[in-house]
Amino acid sequence: MKIGIIGASGYGGLELIRLLHNHPEVEQLDLFTSSEEGTLFSSKFPHTSNLYDQPLLKIDYAQLIDYDVIFASTPAGVTSRLLPPLIGSGPRLIDLSGDFRLKDFAEYERWYKKTPAPAEAVEQSTYGLTEWNYEEIRNAQLIANPGCYPTAVLLSLLPLIKEKLIDASALIIDAKSGVSGAGNTPGPMTHFSETNENFSIYKIHEHQHIPEIEQGIEQFGGQKTPVTFTTHLVPMTRGIMATSYAPVNAGVTEEQLINCLQETYAGRPFVRVMNESVKFCTKQVAGSNYCDIHVKVDPRTNRATIVSVIDNLVKGAAGQAVQNMNVQFGLDETTGLTHVPLFI
Amino acid sequence: MKIGIIGASGYGGLELIRLLHNHPEVEQLDLFTSSEEGTLFSSKFPHTSNLYDQPLLKIDYAQLIDYDVIFASTPAGVTSRLLPPLIGSGPRLIDLSGDFRLKDFAEYERWYKKTPAPAEAVEQSTYGLTEWNYEEIRNAQLIANPGCYPTAVLLSLLPLIKEKLIDASALIIDAKSGVSGAGNTPGPMTHFSETNENFSIYKIHEHQHIPEIEQGIEQFGGQKTPVTFTTHLVPMTRGIMATSYAPVNAGVTEEQLINCLQETYAGRPFVRVMNESVKFCTKQVAGSNYCDIHVKVDPRTNRATIVSVIDNLVKGAAGQAVQNMNVQFGLDETTGLTHVPLFI
Amino acid sequence: MKIGIIGASGYGGLELIRLLHNHPEVEQLDLFTSSEEGTLFSSKFPHTSNLYDQPLLKIDYAQLIDYDVIFASTPAGVTSRLLPPLIGSGPRLIDLSGDFRLKDFAEYERWYKKTPAPAEAVEQSTYGLTEWNYEEIRNAQLIANPGCYPTAVLLSLLPLIKEKLIDASALIIDAKSGVSGAGNTPGPMTHFSETNENFSIYKIHEHQHIPEIEQGIEQFGGQKTPVTFTTHLVPMTRGIMATSYAPVNAGVTEEQLINCLQETYAGRPFVRVMNESVKFCTKQVAGSNYCDIHVKVDPRTNRATIVSVIDNLVKGAAGQAVQNMNVQFGLDETTGLTHVPLFI
Amino acid sequence: MKIGIIGASGYGGLELIRLLHNHPEVEQLDLFTSSEEGTLFSSKFPHTSNLYDQPLLKIDYAQLIDYDVIFASTPAGVTSRLLPPLIGSGPRLIDLSGDFRLKDFAEYERWYKKTPAPAEAVEQSTYGLTEWNYEEIRNAQLIANPGCYPTAVLLSLLPLIKEKLIDASALIIDAKSGVSGAGNTPGPMTHFSETNENFSIYKIHEHQHIPEIEQGIEQFGGQKTPVTFTTHLVPMTRGIMATSYAPVNAGVTEEQLINCLQETYAGRPFVRVMNESVKFCTKQVAGSNYCDIHVKVDPRTNRATIVSVIDNLVKGAAGQAVQNMNVQFGLDETTGLTHVPLFI
Repeated sequence: MKIGIIGASGYGGLELIRLLHNHPEVEQLDLFTSSEEGTLFSSKFPHTSNLYDQPLLKIDYAQLIDYDVIFASTPAGVTSRLLPPLIGSGPRLIDLSGDFRLKDFAEYERWYKKTPAPAEAVEQSTYGLTEWNYEEIRNAQLIANPGCYPTAVLLSLLPLIKEKLIDASALIIDAKSGVSGAGNTPGPMTHFSETNENFSIYKIHEHQHIPEIEQGIEQFGGQKTPVTFTTHLVPMTRGIMATSYAPVNAGVTEEQLINCLQETYAGRPFVRVMNESVKFCTKQVAGSNYCDIHVKVDPRTNRATIVSVIDNLVKGAAGQAVQNMNVQFGLDETTGLTHVPLFI
Repeated sequence: MKIGIIGASGYGGLELIRLLHNHPEVEQLDLFTSSEEGTLFSSKFPHTSNLYDQPLLKIDYAQLIDYDVIFASTPAGVTSRLLPPLIGSGPRLIDLSGDFRLKDFAEYERWYKKTPAPAEAVEQSTYGLTEWNYEEIRNAQLIANPGCYPTAVLLSLLPLIKEKLIDASALIIDAKSGVSGAGNTPGPMTHFSETNENFSIYKIHEHQHIPEIEQGIEQFGGQKTPVTFTTHLVPMTRGIMATSYAPVNAGVTEEQLINCLQETYAGRPFVRVMNESVKFCTKQVAGSNYCDIHVKVDPRTNRATIVSVIDNLVKGAAGQAVQNMNVQFGLDETTGLTHVPLFI
Repeated sequence: MKIGIIGASGYGGLELIRLLHNHPEVEQLDLFTSSEEGTLFSSKFPHTSNLYDQPLLKIDYAQLIDYDVIFASTPAGVTSRLLPPLIGSGPRLIDLSGDFRLKDFAEYERWYKKTPAPAEAVEQSTYGLTEWNYEEIRNAQLIANPGCYPTAVLLSLLPLIKEKLIDASALIIDAKSGVSGAGNTPGPMTHFSETNENFSIYKIHEHQHIPEIEQGIEQFGGQKTPVTFTTHLVPMTRGIMATSYAPVNAGVTEEQLINCLQETYAGRPFVRVMNESVKFCTKQVAGSNYCDIHVKVDPRTNRATIVSVIDNLVKGAAGQAVQNMNVQFGLDETTGLTHVPLFI
Repeated sequence: MKIGIIGASGYGGLELIRLLHNHPEVEQLDLFTSSEEGTLFSSKFPHTSNLYDQPLLKIDYAQLIDYDVIFASTPAGVTSRLLPPLIGSGPRLIDLSGDFRLKDFAEYERWYKKTPAPAEAVEQSTYGLTEWNYEEIRNAQLIANPGCYPTAVLLSLLPLIKEKLIDASALIIDAKSGVSGAGNTPGPMTHFSETNENFSIYKIHEHQHIPEIEQGIEQFGGQKTPVTFTTHLVPMTRGIMATSYAPVNAGVTEEQLINCLQETYAGRPFVRVMNESVKFCTKQVAGSNYCDIHVKVDPRTNRATIVSVIDNLVKGAAGQAVQNMNVQFGLDETTGLTHVPLFI
């Protein structure tokens, strides 16, 4: 396979390179840029010395159509302009931005405060939550790869909502992310001296992943409801934990919740439902494509606490993108993604 | 004033030393131990060299009764045995453990899994949430200094519950703490290589601060209700953030919530109600006795997100203890506690 | 005392505020700016809410001359223009930048790559290494407050060089700093995701503190020699450790080195010579004005390893500045600086 | 290949599992223990759920002799007893402890303060610094895998010492390590609250890697000299940087040093000699088997600063062990080790 990455200098792009480098079906990996043509990649990122000493290539559609897959890892508002010319042409397209995820343009504008992608492009895009949209992904040309938070949230909640075991209308989602989710542009929110030894809450009720979560709950869980969703910044680089709370429906037990999750994900290689709770943590999936889920019902309140963890750059971005590529090409889902998590 | 600290080698004790060292009314500060008599304090804690080169003293009740204040910073299950002999004697007693907080012995046994303190001792103790129990504290001999999580939670929620602006019966509290809350005994949960660059959830529905929070809501907020409360470990040393969620009662606006908080804490020097939300974070109170509170109502769900931050070792432990001592002795509440937070 | 700070929004300025806020002789503390006139300080720095809600003031020399002390915490290249108009007027001037430290203009230009301050200003400035220049500081109007690295290095080496116990001509200084030394301007070197869980070396042989160290060794140690000095970035906010290596001169013992240090600093409240080496670390001085020094001779190589630690923002910047102010005004050196280090 | 790991629960063992899991020639990977027989590995390490749900096996020599390779990742003082019965039997033996590294028993006892391994065993062991001992490793049964610090130090210095470009007799090595180097046993040196936001120096002149470095310099560099070597603890999990200082010999230029390093390592896949110095850092090799080296000569002092970085758990332990296994079995050295570093 011949692969191109647009936006290789961002964290999503860097992580795609890390994963695709050892993917057994990848024969060629080229890096494209809109602004840094000719820069030697490894001079910008010394950790890729000897591996990616090649120059960044100019985006040239005449060339791009010859690739098998084009990954776009450019910011929201940019991809929506870059990818449409390739729709209908040869390569499969996998976009890591939020530009093709929301089917409702008004929602996109409201939450992203940017001009939406062209309507036809959005219509043709397929939401790439692999475990829930496998068949569509298999045949899709353009995949809107899910956001990091929605991946952690939806994987843990959809089975319980779909089977009506919890009350989605009272759902509270308290999410925490490592700082790499903010990308590689320096700014006050990511300045070491103020981020280290600090824990922040940000964008209360205003995060652009809220409509994506609600759309997913409706599309795959069959319920339309607004959710309360807050996001916090953890002084670490990688990892997301989503702690969700919902009343369990009458008569439902903790065991039923666990069984529902286990049955839903039986045979799915990247979702692990765990009974362990002594230390349920983000590091148990670090560097891997796993999403681990843990659930407990509090008999005093009859509410469930549902916890999920992912590596935001892997299952929350580049890993799920590669997983989707595997599905598109009929490969085993885990090809190139068989990492043991870096617990230490 | 002549002050004694029992358990000076723990983090609560070390922080008491830091704060009392510059307290203008403190003339003598002695450190007591049950197991390390004679050890030079600064040889154990080199950061106190030249300041506390004195030996740790043996606990001797005949001596202890001559102090003005005895702070106990020993673990739960220990203080309940150490302090009772001093009840009724001269010194004011301020206990940083959980041993005298819960009035219901059965609750203590259930959550702490230890033998409760003697009934008479617990009866005579006063819960030291300064802003809510000022008059009782002023006259108390034995103060049960509040837990770190309950302090952050109760200060932010009590005004809204008492004024019936939010629905306490649906309260979800998602709390996050720095690792110093776990004390100074090494163990797997606090081992650097597994705690660093990691975010964990622990003791789901089982944290011993749950009954303390519920007791406080009943005592000061006038409502009896179980709460959902979870605790997470943040890879940082100091700081607690409590993010709480509750439906607002019919017709209640965000402005009313803010006003209620501001009015409740008008004139209270250590509680700051902030409109700022760009980066509401634990570091804005680090090293200080402040509790900062921020509240937002989501018009889409009609739920309030109420956030509070404290330094767990200061307002969540030693700082509030000193504040209580000030109240007991008729001093200005802020004496010795006028630190500007260490934002960096 | 009526104090003004120019450049209060930088880390040096923020730390000056933290320290001066509790200084018993400070009656008024005003904050000046060249670019943000009228901004409410606490809206920019919420951690100062209720404490510094005042607007930033415009720099106005007619007003500035009425202050007792003006601290400048503006970048190198800026202070050299801002302070000279105040030379010879009423206020004592304490500059935290490097602009008035180097007496040799050519050296300033070579290392700072900026235009030097006016010659007369530099001539009138006094190097503010308190323990070594006490008498001059007492009478100085303009103090060039030492750099963070030179403070840690010079305090630990000067006694041994002056007494000719080590061979300064073979001196190797390997210094490590927390990230706050880089100030509060976001950039790639201080971007959390790339700085966290990372350790870097930077500016090898090119750090602008090299000539300052060499000048100090000549001025106070009586030897003129180039030194090897490298700087590393530690993934923490505060703290500097300087590990220095030099051959001990013939016949000199470890005991002599320790004695020399102890005698030099006998009676100096902020320098602690420690025998403890189990864990000699930056946290033992965090938040305080201490410089701790430890020395060991390796009998196998006959070389001494001399280690010193400071809090770069306190003894390495704002704390030493306040110490110098105390000396200028005949106050006890420790006034307002009696903090117990924040070991945790 | 059928592989056994003794001591899988330590960090070296965990990292071996991570690397061998994706090694294309490994068909079976079994985990042995001396104390936890029957424990399900993934119940102890949830990050290996679904991957290593197998029980830990009892050490049974009758079984062990049927393996192709046995890796020992047990502590110094333990391996020296465990491995000797296997010498001369079928499996290749790769020991990650220090027990078989030092040829001089007296040195082992002096620095390790333990009883040395049997003399014949030590005699038969081969020091596994792959790039310098390739031919011997190819034929060795028992490999003493190098220590983390010696690997970083020797790879960067040996070429320059061997070619007599620097003066080894004046060598100063200032090394810094992430905390995982201390292993997974909790203790005060690795307790999060005291290690985080802290930088320490430890075991000054007493680290057990000193004789290993000196032995390597003699064996491969041809010079017998004591070195000054100090070790520091960085508040991060992974990574080692060694900053070494030595006078360059008369007439030698920086270019010659760089050329010497580049020529020595031409064709060696895991050593990268880099000109880049803007941010030379440990993260550029994180998770990979690379050793990156950077050198600069200071014309003012005529000394070279030679910097090298490795991931202490990979090239400094498990990665080099796998590299050695590859060499032993005639595989391409990089088999299973082609990771792109985890820069973020």
